[in-house]
Amino acid sequence: MSGSVTVVGLGPGDPGLVTPAASAALERATDLIGYIPYVARVPERPGLTRHPSDNRVEVDRARHALTLAAEGRHVAVVSGGDPGVFAMAAALFEAVEDGEPAWRRLAITVEPGITAMLAAAARLGAPMGGDFCAVSLSDNLKPWKIVTARLEAALRADFVIALYNPISSARPWQLGAALGLALEIRSADTPVAFARAVTRPDEAIRVMTLGEAREAPADMATLVIIGASGTRLIPRGPGERPFVYTPRSVPTERV
Amino acid sequence: MSGSVTVVGLGPGDPGLVTPAASAALERATDLIGYIPYVARVPERPGLTRHPSDNRVEVDRARHALTLAAEGRHVAVVSGGDPGVFAMAAALFEAVEDGEPAWRRLAITVEPGITAMLAAAARLGAPMGGDFCAVSLSDNLKPWKIVTARLEAALRADFVIALYNPISSARPWQLGAALGLALEIRSADTPVAFARAVTRPDEAIRVMTLGEAREAPADMATLVIIGASGTRLIPRGPGERPFVYTPRSVPTERV
Repeated sequence: MSGSVTVVGLGPGDPGLVTPAASAALERATDLIGYIPYVARVPERPGLTRHPSDNRVEVDRARHALTLAAEGRHVAVVSGGDPGVFAMAAALFEAVEDGEPAWRRLAITVEPGITAMLAAAARLGAPMGGDFCAVSLSDNLKPWKIVTARLEAALRADFVIALYNPISSARPWQLGAALGLALEIRSADTPVAFARAVTRPDEAIRVMTLGEAREAPADMATLVIIGASGTRLIPRGPGERPFVYTPRSVPTERV
Repeated sequence: MSGSVTVVGLGPGDPGLVTPAASAALERATDLIGYIPYVARVPERPGLTRHPSDNRVEVDRARHALTLAAEGRHVAVVSGGDPGVFAMAAALFEAVEDGEPAWRRLAITVEPGITAMLAAAARLGAPMGGDFCAVSLSDNLKPWKIVTARLEAALRADFVIALYNPISSARPWQLGAALGLALEIRSADTPVAFARAVTRPDEAIRVMTLGEAREAPADMATLVIIGASGTRLIPRGPGERPFVYTPRSVPTERV
């Protein structure tokens, strides 16, 4: 058994943000597995069998990859952003743990990528310049009570917070609830960014206050950043988006 | 004034993890500013003036970059990992805010990179597969009381925690104190990883329990990951490091 699985992070969308190591992993692959829009980012070539899937059950895709690898194939499982951040890597290891003992002897590697939070931060300035948390608002796999407990802890401890999976047609109210909780704990003038489709042709980035954020539209492609108490705007010229950044220092009087 | 500053993330060290966009930004630069080991990663070439610095005051480097850009130079400020994560981007915007009004009209961009936490996670499996926090243990710029308050909040809310800047000769006890706090809140068998110099020739990655971690050596190049209650190991063959991963699901009984 000499097959392999590499979980490859494709970054936020700009081909300039796909690492050379990720590109090399894609070039070595005999089989490509992933959600349709991610597979579509990888050019066709002879010798590469593509298995695009619209199955939302990530563990099914992971089992498919491991089954092919056990047959000796070299499988690339593609993921947007970084595969380790609310993406395919955890699903793959869930499938390994619950699957055939032989799967543990496969060559399994993960190629990191630029995750949405850091791509959005780079566009905005340096909003994650202090301590920060990343929270998925999806309650498909964890109880909503856990989500709110984590958010509340992060808000009270003054972390910058990145919200992944903020909203979907099946989860229409969670983002509003999360922003409402934030408003109970943080000032209404806290900077908030909604970063949609970062680095893709339809990129849309909006900077607003926490007070305004509840009325702002968002969708599945949106990454939300809620500033900490120190997060600041630097105004620029007319029509230019301000820089958003969090200073590295926390003044002693905030203790 | 047509100069520019780009803060460029060089990733953890492997040239295969430098994005093409970062490489292109380095090729466009007339001037290269950064801490000596990061400047050393960029090859010399005609037309590129290198300004390596061993000054630990990041804001000084940022002001130098902005001053050169105001003279019309195209400056790349290089940073390890991702510039937005405990690195040069926040220092640059601090310098912009406190500096010459004209600096706000410069073209200032940030090129994201693979941050240490995600490079380490990729090597380990998928330890950051759930909600996670990143905390700098340095108390040079924030009171230690803030560091412990944030750690305690993150530990109680069951986040996976990545510790940046865990230790240095001037800060020898903070990591031990942080791990001691973790032991008060999490089980002694919680998986912990010490990932040193990830993707560099001297890479050393160790997986241990939280109970063992206080005795483990660490240095400035070490990134520490403390697992959540769900973080698990998948044993492999003799002599092989286990996979470390955090399942995406949180069981309802943990609420």
